[in-house]
Amino acid sequence: MLTCPPYPLYLSLYIHTINTTPLPTTPLSQTTSLNFSNNLSSQNVVVSFLSMAPTVLSTFATEIIIPVCAVIGIVFSLIQWFLVSRVKMTPDRNANNNNNSNKNGYDDYLIEEEEGVNDHNVVVKCAEIQNAISEGATSFLFTEYQYVGIFMVVFAILIFLFLGSVEGFSTKSQKCTYNVHQMCKPALATAAFSTIAFLLGAITSLISGFLGMKIATYANARTTLEARKGVGKAFVTAFRSGAVMGFLLAASGLLVLYIAINLFKLYYGDDWEGLFEAITGYGLGGSSMALFGRVGGGIYTKAADVGADLVGKIERNIPEDDPRNPAVIADNVGDNVGDIAGMGSDLFGSYAESSCAALVVASISSFGIEHDFTAMCYPLLVSSVGIIVCLITTLFATDFFEIKVVDEIQSALKKQLIISTVLMTVGIAIVSFIGLPTSFTIFNFGVQKVVYNWQLFLCVCVGLWAGLIIGFVTEYYTSNAYSPVQDVADSCRTGAATNVIFGLALGYKSVIIPIFAIAISIFVSFSFAAMYGIAVAALGMLSTIATGLAIDAYGPISDNAGGIAEMAGMSHRIRERTDALDAAGNTTAAIGKGFAIGSAALVSLALFGAFVSRAGIETVDVLTPKVFIGLIVGAMLPYWFSAMTMKSVGSAALKMVEEVRRQFNTIPGLMEGLAKPDYTTCVKISTDASIKEMIPPGALVILTPLIVGTFFGVETLSGVLAGALVSGVQVAISASNTGGAWDNAKKYIEAGASEHARTLGPKGSEPHKAAVIGDTIGDPLKDTSGPSLNILIKLMAVESLVFAPFFAAHGGLLFKL
Amino acid sequence: MLTCPPYPLYLSLYIHTINTTPLPTTPLSQTTSLNFSNNLSSQNVVVSFLSMAPTVLSTFATEIIIPVCAVIGIVFSLIQWFLVSRVKMTPDRNANNNNNSNKNGYDDYLIEEEEGVNDHNVVVKCAEIQNAISEGATSFLFTEYQYVGIFMVVFAILIFLFLGSVEGFSTKSQKCTYNVHQMCKPALATAAFSTIAFLLGAITSLISGFLGMKIATYANARTTLEARKGVGKAFVTAFRSGAVMGFLLAASGLLVLYIAINLFKLYYGDDWEGLFEAITGYGLGGSSMALFGRVGGGIYTKAADVGADLVGKIERNIPEDDPRNPAVIADNVGDNVGDIAGMGSDLFGSYAESSCAALVVASISSFGIEHDFTAMCYPLLVSSVGIIVCLITTLFATDFFEIKVVDEIQSALKKQLIISTVLMTVGIAIVSFIGLPTSFTIFNFGVQKVVYNWQLFLCVCVGLWAGLIIGFVTEYYTSNAYSPVQDVADSCRTGAATNVIFGLALGYKSVIIPIFAIAISIFVSFSFAAMYGIAVAALGMLSTIATGLAIDAYGPISDNAGGIAEMAGMSHRIRERTDALDAAGNTTAAIGKGFAIGSAALVSLALFGAFVSRAGIETVDVLTPKVFIGLIVGAMLPYWFSAMTMKSVGSAALKMVEEVRRQFNTIPGLMEGLAKPDYTTCVKISTDASIKEMIPPGALVILTPLIVGTFFGVETLSGVLAGALVSGVQVAISASNTGGAWDNAKKYIEAGASEHARTLGPKGSEPHKAAVIGDTIGDPLKDTSGPSLNILIKLMAVESLVFAPFFAAHGGLLFKL
Repeated sequence: MLTCPPYPLYLSLYIHTINTTPLPTTPLSQTTSLNFSNNLSSQNVVVSFLSMAPTVLSTFATEIIIPVCAVIGIVFSLIQWFLVSRVKMTPDRNANNNNNSNKNGYDDYLIEEEEGVNDHNVVVKCAEIQNAISEGATSFLFTEYQYVGIFMVVFAILIFLFLGSVEGFSTKSQKCTYNVHQMCKPALATAAFSTIAFLLGAITSLISGFLGMKIATYANARTTLEARKGVGKAFVTAFRSGAVMGFLLAASGLLVLYIAINLFKLYYGDDWEGLFEAITGYGLGGSSMALFGRVGGGIYTKAADVGADLVGKIERNIPEDDPRNPAVIADNVGDNVGDIAGMGSDLFGSYAESSCAALVVASISSFGIEHDFTAMCYPLLVSSVGIIVCLITTLFATDFFEIKVVDEIQSALKKQLIISTVLMTVGIAIVSFIGLPTSFTIFNFGVQKVVYNWQLFLCVCVGLWAGLIIGFVTEYYTSNAYSPVQDVADSCRTGAATNVIFGLALGYKSVIIPIFAIAISIFVSFSFAAMYGIAVAALGMLSTIATGLAIDAYGPISDNAGGIAEMAGMSHRIRERTDALDAAGNTTAAIGKGFAIGSAALVSLALFGAFVSRAGIETVDVLTPKVFIGLIVGAMLPYWFSAMTMKSVGSAALKMVEEVRRQFNTIPGLMEGLAKPDYTTCVKISTDASIKEMIPPGALVILTPLIVGTFFGVETLSGVLAGALVSGVQVAISASNTGGAWDNAKKYIEAGASEHARTLGPKGSEPHKAAVIGDTIGDPLKDTSGPSLNILIKLMAVESLVFAPFFAAHGGLLFKL
Repeated sequence: MLTCPPYPLYLSLYIHTINTTPLPTTPLSQTTSLNFSNNLSSQNVVVSFLSMAPTVLSTFATEIIIPVCAVIGIVFSLIQWFLVSRVKMTPDRNANNNNNSNKNGYDDYLIEEEEGVNDHNVVVKCAEIQNAISEGATSFLFTEYQYVGIFMVVFAILIFLFLGSVEGFSTKSQKCTYNVHQMCKPALATAAFSTIAFLLGAITSLISGFLGMKIATYANARTTLEARKGVGKAFVTAFRSGAVMGFLLAASGLLVLYIAINLFKLYYGDDWEGLFEAITGYGLGGSSMALFGRVGGGIYTKAADVGADLVGKIERNIPEDDPRNPAVIADNVGDNVGDIAGMGSDLFGSYAESSCAALVVASISSFGIEHDFTAMCYPLLVSSVGIIVCLITTLFATDFFEIKVVDEIQSALKKQLIISTVLMTVGIAIVSFIGLPTSFTIFNFGVQKVVYNWQLFLCVCVGLWAGLIIGFVTEYYTSNAYSPVQDVADSCRTGAATNVIFGLALGYKSVIIPIFAIAISIFVSFSFAAMYGIAVAALGMLSTIATGLAIDAYGPISDNAGGIAEMAGMSHRIRERTDALDAAGNTTAAIGKGFAIGSAALVSLALFGAFVSRAGIETVDVLTPKVFIGLIVGAMLPYWFSAMTMKSVGSAALKMVEEVRRQFNTIPGLMEGLAKPDYTTCVKISTDASIKEMIPPGALVILTPLIVGTFFGVETLSGVLAGALVSGVQVAISASNTGGAWDNAKKYIEAGASEHARTLGPKGSEPHKAAVIGDTIGDPLKDTSGPSLNILIKLMAVESLVFAPFFAAHGGLLFKL
């Protein structure tokens, strides 16, 4: 299949000669959209002389490889699901009647057996709790989707109207913007197809989130039951369930995108410029659903969690996840809708956006102009290889090695990161050398820049490895195995105030290295291949998304498993195992968030670059007032947004506190465990509050680009995007790490695993109380406002990109007056 | 003195004609320093044809007005000092022997008298405490100045070497950069004079800070004693003392700058370009001292405060400022060295820098090229009028009206802001119309832009009024008279965690309007008069600096007065009065900080603009990798810096806690009030910790521009400055308002002035305890990390400006390799 044609050397030399010709530019202040396309036209004449060397991989092979990899991913995820489903959730009545009853249908003995407790009621109880959680989560997501559905329809209409109006809803074909020798499809077609792509992205995102939640709630009780057989079994169950979600999401995201491109091509034919412009709607759809998933889910989970803790742990002095706490089911539901469904759609959005950003830049580079399908599909090929690499990586956790003791969990998860990164480096090398011509040109704000395939290989790698570095730094600052979290725990000696001061300082400090890692990736990839480089660097970071999601989803599943163990009244040994799984999950959750933020930064920059290209801006000069005010206002948006989301969590939590207190005060026998609390009301409070509260921050994010673009124009909008990006990344990283550190500082004191930790504990001591306060403050930071900021910066960028033609044509009303 | 010559109309028309000629520009990627000056030269030929209409105010009048206003300011401040000094700190033995003994040498009866307590020992005790505070503060400042002195010498040498090396230490005159027809003094001279200006600025800043601290510690006990006669008397004493500092600082800053310009002119003669380049060293000197003042003082004050509160209020349950607490003197010293000396040098730095930024831009605009001294001195004239306006404003507080009840304090202070702003608007109008030609040109990154005097009037006004808006918004978010702080207080019902969540959300939210105010000022002033507009807008905001400083310094003085009343064992009625003064002071302190941050944002932008002009950069394009990585790393610096300063406060506070605990445990009879604590050791701990801890954050700020400029070059440095500016402003505002809100939420509960407040109190209740935790967390945010960020953004900008010729000539080593 793969043959190696000789590369004609003179071609790359020829490109050099042409590129040394100085290109005409206009003074800054006079740059207009018209002017810009004129410039381009004269330049495209030059470019059209070029022809690239063919790629090793044929178009036909590309057409096969991508869908095959996607299907392999889906099949693998189904296999994992099947393996998880083999854990029985019904008491084995037959087994009860024969001699093997103590094995619960497996070959292993249960610990509970050893302890003489093998109550089949436990299994029944687990199943009940699991159902309650699953029902709560399903009901919330359906309610959320009703509102989101309305938004989807309204926004789809808006997209169609705004983009259709660019050429006054004309159905005539027009000259292309970048390649003026060719006729392109009318703006109306782009409007229609963008709308379709938007809907496709939105629906894929919703389905991914929903399925992720389903498998998580399917797996949580199974993990609890497996914990009876040992920590290794429980780990494998939780991890496999995470993998189901990871692979399903990565593979279906790729497959839908691939199918959409091929279907759209039936209409667009050779007009790849229009085709890939329309495809950007896919990213917008994915990301706008992620917004509601992250914000709504984030508010839900933390309102329940904070509310449950404030009354249960602090006032009533009952343990976390105690079944007497009325908010406990809502808390567990929250983990699934916030951390699983929300995070899934967030990363899906990043993936879709970085692919779209890369494709849209490629379509106006030599790949697109020369119609080299394989090279054009380079971003999809990288993702395809990523699926295979992650598949192999997963086997290391589930099959090649076995976890026997608690201490191995953390390192097993860390190994996942390392193995996937190393394997992926090889994968990228292969794709880069067979899927790209040795040299080609990339569109760079009005000029075409010559790039070599090894340079693009480095761009993807730098993103991939920056992701790993961010992961490790996050681990260092949020795991209680290292000194930063231990210092925070130690500061609890002098009370909650010093705990908070140290925690905030830790979060601020944890920003430094990730920002340098992101800056270096940007510099390298930008220098090599302009905005295309940034986009593929983002894709590099996201290429191991299946593994990333697996270890990320593993956290909330283990958390739920612990909750179920507590609620089902299982022995403390089971709870200790699930706690150990959960502690590792806390760190991986923080790593996942670091990853999500890092990739969001690169993705937004790539989208920003694509927006700037599409809007016909040549420079975004900080020294012009229009841009500078955009920059400073943009840098303020993450604060505005965080203020909204944090206040929302606070208010919703207060409502929850009142309800929980009411139940404790009015339901007789609740504290004594004689009466059952009313879980449903608490679930309803969280649902209603989160739906209501997600609207203002959602509106802020959705409306800002529309208002700024329409009234202030594309320059100010560029400033806003750059400002929100550089400021939002810092707020997001620090918020998420501060929260993670507080959570694990508390766990450090509770676990009492070292001499130092024991001097701070036990549970209920003054330092522990201080640590609980820190943990509660950290909840909205790490699970609501922090991760939602990813979406803020990405969504504003992709929205600007989709609406760019409208803003360029009709925007800046205020300055025009 | 003021005559009105007819303006030749044709001149302004002529300017128009010339300016419509398109200017030659070069493609972005090829912009070099050389290229740039070539461009300018061809343009200066055009400019030299112009001649402006003369200003109404003659050069001679200008030469008189500025120093006269400065001297008036100094005399006024001495009068205030004299008035404060009339409050006797020694018991009046003569009065004791005659019938008027109960009047303490005044015409008023003392309350204590009414209560039958007129213990002369109280006066002696107050004097003792005052001495202890004054000695502690003096000793700290001297220690600090030793270290700062070393830094000053080293940095002065560095400035001389770096700037001298630009032309290889040549003593030959050279062609001017902007006006190539003229010969300018050698770079070596600029190096020498910059160094002198740096030292002048540094020394003025140190003296201002020191004198401010002296008057504050001179006035605090006098305020306590006056509180015996009524709240009005106490208010006037505290306010007059604040005014001493405000006027001394504003007037001496102006006078020294004016004298320096005139002395430097003796050497520079007609080379105004070189003259005002050298003058920028003054701003650098002022700001670098402010860095150490703010950071060192901030760590000092909060280490003592947090340490004292953690043991005293939380563990030992003794009131604030209780004399049994060993850290109480250190706490009071801290107020003086942090909030008075630190804040004074901060605002002095802003003032010096905005003047320098305006002057350096003016020197390469038509004012400088045409040698119009009056127009050139416009920034100084605005400041001169500001002194007179503030003088009148002060009389409204001290003489025209009298405060009789506690509720009037807050509104009296607010009126100061409003009156000074309204009067200043008139003042600016006068200066703008008599001190400026009707039209002139301003240098705008390579082109000369025509500006009218009414436009410049608007630029100054927009800054002035933006300052007022920022002040009001800050008041709204930090005063407990409004709902935001009351909501935060209410959230204490559910514990410290919700208090912190609501407080953080409040801080984030409080950023929104100030940022819009700053953005609008930037847009207006930038559009009218480019970077000169920004610089004069900053000056507008700072033009009422004397009043701003007076109401700002009033806060810590009242705080100290309360402390002294407590320590001297005066009746609770006295304490209530000083508490009321202090509560108003808390809000004004927050307003002062908001002001300082807002002006810092404008000043930094102006300095940034001056830097860009001086470094020969024409655009700072976010779409180039060099700039973008600068932007994102710059946006990270405020976090790095805050992490350092907050951790420093935390560690220093822990040391203080240990010492205070040790004393309580080892000194017998301390808790019972039978033994005296060892205050000196606590003062020493704070001193040592702050000196040691101020070095790393100081190094970060000082070294960043040097490293980035030298190794990465001016483009990346521009990115860093812009990033630090847009991100730092947000962090600073939110940190300072969050802290202020927590402090006043606590005071709200303690005062119990409303039905709602009483449901949360009294002192010692659970909500109050939660509020104390919030207050303690807020301490480092509002008094250390938040306000220090002003300096971060300003100092990096002014340092870049001073070193610009070096970076432009030899910078960017890494990219050159």
